[in-house]
Amino acid sequence: MNFNEVIKTRRSIRKYKQTEIPESVIEDVLDSARYAPSSMNGQPWEFLVVRDSDKKRRLSAIKNKYCPIEKLKYSADFLCHVPVIIILCVNLEKSYDRTVENSVLAASHILLKACEKGLGTVYMSAYKTGEPKLTEDIKHLFNIPDSLVPITLIPIGYPDEIPEVKNLVPLRDIVSYETFGT
Amino acid sequence: MNFNEVIKTRRSIRKYKQTEIPESVIEDVLDSARYAPSSMNGQPWEFLVVRDSDKKRRLSAIKNKYCPIEKLKYSADFLCHVPVIIILCVNLEKSYDRTVENSVLAASHILLKACEKGLGTVYMSAYKTGEPKLTEDIKHLFNIPDSLVPITLIPIGYPDEIPEVKNLVPLRDIVSYETFGT
Repeated sequence: MNFNEVIKTRRSIRKYKQTEIPESVIEDVLDSARYAPSSMNGQPWEFLVVRDSDKKRRLSAIKNKYCPIEKLKYSADFLCHVPVIIILCVNLEKSYDRTVENSVLAASHILLKACEKGLGTVYMSAYKTGEPKLTEDIKHLFNIPDSLVPITLIPIGYPDEIPEVKNLVPLRDIVSYETFGT
Repeated sequence: MNFNEVIKTRRSIRKYKQTEIPESVIEDVLDSARYAPSSMNGQPWEFLVVRDSDKKRRLSAIKNKYCPIEKLKYSADFLCHVPVIIILCVNLEKSYDRTVENSVLAASHILLKACEKGLGTVYMSAYKTGEPKLTEDIKHLFNIPDSLVPITLIPIGYPDEIPEVKNLVPLRDIVSYETFGT
């Protein structure tokens, strides 16, 4: 797939086939994340690959427990039925006050590379402002060491849904030149 | 360029040729950002395209002023000589407590699309934890309205340097399965 096809066909997927994902494909997807930029070239990433059903069920419950009211339409129940979940952690000592940026830059490569491989994904967060228990529960579940903080969760599998066409805001409505208000 | 070439050849560039970037190319680059995922599909992005020399000089001075000690080796002086700087702003009312994520997901598309077009970029931040003055000064310089917060700055131009080969941490050192410590 060329670059533009990947960018324009990637969509957030929440329903997946039960088809197994070959380990080599997961490795390709994770490998792409290593090429993301990172603050001070710290490359502070650690990735956890989760296939265990019980762990997926418990992660789903944790995400639902701390779901904000305005996001309740996006239940995390589907995590129970995802073939693989990738948990992106960032090493606090190598991320130079840019833990979220570092995780998201790597996550973006994962979302796009997975799409290129015919896989669906959706970006999810492993932390919540003002609610440290979400992160604490995830750290406890996966035995994540103190030096790492989980920032992003990426379910990944072959899509079993075709999302509705998304209406994008026209470019002219969101671009300004030199200064706002002109 | 195919997807893998883009992912693997993109590098952070801080020295640029003075060659003008056609407006249509800037539009293509910004267009790719619209396809990024966003929290609750809020599409909360607004982009400011800066070519004005005085604005670039003043932005460079602001970035240098608030540069943390540990990042002093990355002076922002080069911003004075960049053909274009894109400022990514996020609408607080459409970003559902995910302002940084929303900006970085769009920024990643911009970094990659620019690379596909032969352009260099580097990810820079428009805010600093514990130092609101950085953002305030940038908002004042570009007349950014209260509803928007600038998160990311992306200088963009044709590269005038070839960065040294980057040694990536081996994948096996940063991947775990099911739980940490196993």
